Amino acid sequence: MSTPTDHESPLAPPRTQDELNLEHFSSRLDRPVLMKAPEFQRGDRLRHVVFSGQFNPGMLSELAETADMIRLLSKSRDGQDFLRGLLAHRRAMLYFTQPSTRTFLSFMAACQVLGITCNEVRDPQTSSETKGETRFDSIRMFSSYFDLIIMRSPVAKLAESCAYLMNDLERSGQRSVPLINAGSGADEHPTQALLDIYTLQRTFNFENPNDSPGGDKLERLRLMPGYEGLSKGLENKTYAFCGDIGRGRTVRSLAMLLAMYEGVRLVFISPDHPKLRIRDDLRQRLLDRGVPIYELDSFESLLDGKPVIEQVDALYMTRVQKEHDSPEDAESMAAIDTLKYRLTPELVTRMRLYAPILHPFPRDQHFGEIPPEVDDDPRAMYFRQARNGMWIRAALLAHVMDVDHSIARHFFETYRERHVYND
Amino acid sequence: MSTPTDHESPLAPPRTQDELNLEHFSSRLDRPVLMKAPEFQRGDRLRHVVFSGQFNPGMLSELAETADMIRLLSKSRDGQDFLRGLLAHRRAMLYFTQPSTRTFLSFMAACQVLGITCNEVRDPQTSSETKGETRFDSIRMFSSYFDLIIMRSPVAKLAESCAYLMNDLERSGQRSVPLINAGSGADEHPTQALLDIYTLQRTFNFENPNDSPGGDKLERLRLMPGYEGLSKGLENKTYAFCGDIGRGRTVRSLAMLLAMYEGVRLVFISPDHPKLRIRDDLRQRLLDRGVPIYELDSFESLLDGKPVIEQVDALYMTRVQKEHDSPEDAESMAAIDTLKYRLTPELVTRMRLYAPILHPFPRDQHFGEIPPEVDDDPRAMYFRQARNGMWIRAALLAHVMDVDHSIARHFFETYRERHVYND
Amino acid sequence: MSTPTDHESPLAPPRTQDELNLEHFSSRLDRPVLMKAPEFQRGDRLRHVVFSGQFNPGMLSELAETADMIRLLSKSRDGQDFLRGLLAHRRAMLYFTQPSTRTFLSFMAACQVLGITCNEVRDPQTSSETKGETRFDSIRMFSSYFDLIIMRSPVAKLAESCAYLMNDLERSGQRSVPLINAGSGADEHPTQALLDIYTLQRTFNFENPNDSPGGDKLERLRLMPGYEGLSKGLENKTYAFCGDIGRGRTVRSLAMLLAMYEGVRLVFISPDHPKLRIRDDLRQRLLDRGVPIYELDSFESLLDGKPVIEQVDALYMTRVQKEHDSPEDAESMAAIDTLKYRLTPELVTRMRLYAPILHPFPRDQHFGEIPPEVDDDPRAMYFRQARNGMWIRAALLAHVMDVDHSIARHFFETYRERHVYND
Repeated sequence: MSTPTDHESPLAPPRTQDELNLEHFSSRLDRPVLMKAPEFQRGDRLRHVVFSGQFNPGMLSELAETADMIRLLSKSRDGQDFLRGLLAHRRAMLYFTQPSTRTFLSFMAACQVLGITCNEVRDPQTSSETKGETRFDSIRMFSSYFDLIIMRSPVAKLAESCAYLMNDLERSGQRSVPLINAGSGADEHPTQALLDIYTLQRTFNFENPNDSPGGDKLERLRLMPGYEGLSKGLENKTYAFCGDIGRGRTVRSLAMLLAMYEGVRLVFISPDHPKLRIRDDLRQRLLDRGVPIYELDSFESLLDGKPVIEQVDALYMTRVQKEHDSPEDAESMAAIDTLKYRLTPELVTRMRLYAPILHPFPRDQHFGEIPPEVDDDPRAMYFRQARNGMWIRAALLAHVMDVDHSIARHFFETYRERHVYND
Repeated sequence: MSTPTDHESPLAPPRTQDELNLEHFSSRLDRPVLMKAPEFQRGDRLRHVVFSGQFNPGMLSELAETADMIRLLSKSRDGQDFLRGLLAHRRAMLYFTQPSTRTFLSFMAACQVLGITCNEVRDPQTSSETKGETRFDSIRMFSSYFDLIIMRSPVAKLAESCAYLMNDLERSGQRSVPLINAGSGADEHPTQALLDIYTLQRTFNFENPNDSPGGDKLERLRLMPGYEGLSKGLENKTYAFCGDIGRGRTVRSLAMLLAMYEGVRLVFISPDHPKLRIRDDLRQRLLDRGVPIYELDSFESLLDGKPVIEQVDALYMTRVQKEHDSPEDAESMAAIDTLKYRLTPELVTRMRLYAPILHPFPRDQHFGEIPPEVDDDPRAMYFRQARNGMWIRAALLAHVMDVDHSIARHFFETYRERHVYND
Repeated sequence: MSTPTDHESPLAPPRTQDELNLEHFSSRLDRPVLMKAPEFQRGDRLRHVVFSGQFNPGMLSELAETADMIRLLSKSRDGQDFLRGLLAHRRAMLYFTQPSTRTFLSFMAACQVLGITCNEVRDPQTSSETKGETRFDSIRMFSSYFDLIIMRSPVAKLAESCAYLMNDLERSGQRSVPLINAGSGADEHPTQALLDIYTLQRTFNFENPNDSPGGDKLERLRLMPGYEGLSKGLENKTYAFCGDIGRGRTVRSLAMLLAMYEGVRLVFISPDHPKLRIRDDLRQRLLDRGVPIYELDSFESLLDGKPVIEQVDALYMTRVQKEHDSPEDAESMAAIDTLKYRLTPELVTRMRLYAPILHPFPRDQHFGEIPPEVDDDPRAMYFRQARNGMWIRAALLAHVMDVDHSIARHFFETYRERHVYND
């Protein structure tokens, strides 16, 4: 165990007991992602899902296939019953001390698709923590009763530390269960990135007209002027993020995942405010990977000589997280022309026909980054994103709990059978 | 979409964003019930359950039959397993932003009887609404993850508006799920009315001695002096409501349902206070239907020349909802002689032998509208009402989710089988 | 019904309505345990589990056997499916108006092991009690919807009173369900005592090396100097409790259970403070049973001429429940040398090799009665205790719901089958 002084921690000086506890794992926390990722795998399977850096394009493609199979099986009662039988003997703990209805319900639904029984602790006030218990004791209690922990916390690195605790228990022959990070401080939100990627994968497959607005066939789109170079897949695309870049952990996680694909360019559109523009560490990590990045302050800023809104292959809108403003920011935040970061219907009409509009949701009705008038545009994918989130999380659970191969087997058997019946 | 000025809305001028959103649906909300009801049906089946005006005696009779079958099937493990298998592939969202343990648990239990997996959002503080999300975005999120929404809200007309949203989504080919109103402002509480009706249906069947105090057989009762005209069914009866008539949405819904039966008379017993006596609009709607109504201020007031307490076929007690008092009411409310609206054991002994005492519960121990001494009287049906509520809600769910015919088929097969075995 | 004056009630003068309601049952509450216990049995089976005095060594031994079978069956998917099928038609209400994540989750998990569907009411604020409902009305509502009530309350004797209510309903032919006390005021916590006993039973079986640190075989241990007299079972042992003896209801319940075994000695180590040392009534009850008790104020105090820490067969640590301090205690509590009641690693090394360290958890990180450094010692059984709690609670549920014999039958059939296959 390292002491606070013998390493350069990105953490602020410890104040709460929880942060003190994190110190115990600090020497492990401070290593580069590439060194840490293998500890959260068992063979080629993820044991704990902690940060988005654990995924790679091959795994993302497999997860998307599993999600598609779960989605299709769920269309029939037989398929649903099969899926619900897979993990009916498993119990999950959803430990959400940071409020998030959306992520919470999405995981609940994903568990239920696979038959997992859910339990929850959401309000830290009702928990034993009010009696002075550490979060690590809580996590160990959960691992006594349940077979899987899905956790979301306002404390950065807590999920990762808990994964190390599980690893330590496993190593010493004690009970240990898989752990999934459902949002950890301003830090990581790997499954949100997963559903964003899955939504993009489906769009850029150009197969389902619901997912691929503006033409269900790549061939048809390619005939249109300016669309000649369009290709399938996530590669060779320009992705734009707009809004609260600095504090959006979903932006952070998704940007790092997209950076793993060939020929990708990333555009960050935000007010030029130190809290809102891209953070130095993310910029550096992207540059280290050789990804071209563009920092703009308007949808009208030029990219390749044209307004960027007309150039992007996908647009990721975000909510300005005012709840994280500090009092000293009040003046500078008030000076920002927020209207410039609202995606008006007029702007949408200028976007590429197939370019999906994403948003991690909830959107802010007061800020109005996406007004309701945009909802009916076929490019608005943010409601489909929610349901995609359920399927891809179910796929991730199936992977972690080792039933993804059963799903694939059943899917192909069912398919073959149907084929026979159709003959 | 209409503007606030071009219609006569019963709504107060919009203040909150939620109320503003309701404006979007105002032109639809303001139509008469008869015009609206068909939009919430698909064929002869309810798609959304929004107000009690959607029910009619034929449908109420069918629902009661389904409820009776569910109740009887639930007496055996086989029957229970059959029922739980019916909707085991369905997930419900119970979205209760107005506290109500009783209605909430009743719906939970009803869902569980049919195997539906339940999810809940109860405290608006933990939800995404604190991040500025509209309720309509929340509802749409729920419809992404779940197959059924059961909602209760302090906002009048919100449930109805959400049902329109679901209709709009369905029309545009997007995912849409059935919605059930479990209480909406001071407005409607259709499933409470349903369980009140079901309790009355069972009582006036004169079949089960538990449901029909004072004699299980109509024929025996008819021999008693003054009971000669007694008949089966809800028709030709005098129903009294006592307590908080003005603010009781259960009174409102039940009165409108009873008004659909032949020969019904309605009595409203309450302090003569503008907040507590019958509201003008309900009075008018009942008069429009040609229902004789009587507004009295005491159990001793005369009806047909006798104290009303001795004349009623059923008595519906309610809690005075003090939590809705405004400060300016304090003086006038304090002046009310509340003792006059307490149903003492002495009063109960003067009631007709078979006349059930109902109460939507919870009762108020401090106001004491029904003191505990009454609980042991066979006319006290308010505890059986609770269990009736579970069965009739299960029947309603079975109807909406289209498994009521499967229940009937299974019930008669089981019955025939048993009959064969008995021979 | 007795009046507050015609009996000597241990209750304070009634103040809240809940306490007033308790008066209704006071004449029954005030009887000795031996007279009350039979009312909570049906034949040789517990109907309601209210206080630990209902258990006896024979029943504790049977429950431990059932728990062991459930634990072993749960190791295979077949066994898990069998168990989950047993009570899949049953719905439980977990009514926890006193916060307790640990006990709550343990019961949830135990229910889920047996397939029971769980419902919960945890925050009294969201319940109908805010509308003036009595707790007895709430309990009766729960019994309308559910098949089992598991309740935890800050009000002493409330669970027992509710059990009487259930008995009264049963007697009058109305719906009534079993009730389990999951903690009732400062009074009783019978299932915690159950899991403590189960942990000791497993340790003193000397069979499983995980449960019996310091040597898995009794024979091997007996060869060590000073361990010659060691025997299997709970009899003839010295059990020590340390910490908050006065206010720890887990101490209270466990001490009374241990007192039923032959040759048991009980040691209470606590500051000599009137709130913390053993309460007079417990001391008297133990003395009445003829149990030798020792009240010490340090781990170093002598027992049989040696420091007690070296002499105990098991050590039960507890958290000082500061939340129950009254303002007038502040000074006297501050004067206590709390360091004396911390179990340091150094102290642990001096304990007997097999002596388990228990703790009802949560432990208090600030008080530090068990510092994390002790966790890795094989004597630290407090994490295994949690999982034991789940199994023994499942066994208790199986007993109350009358499926324990089915479990035994299935267990032996499975065992025989396996045996056949092995031949």
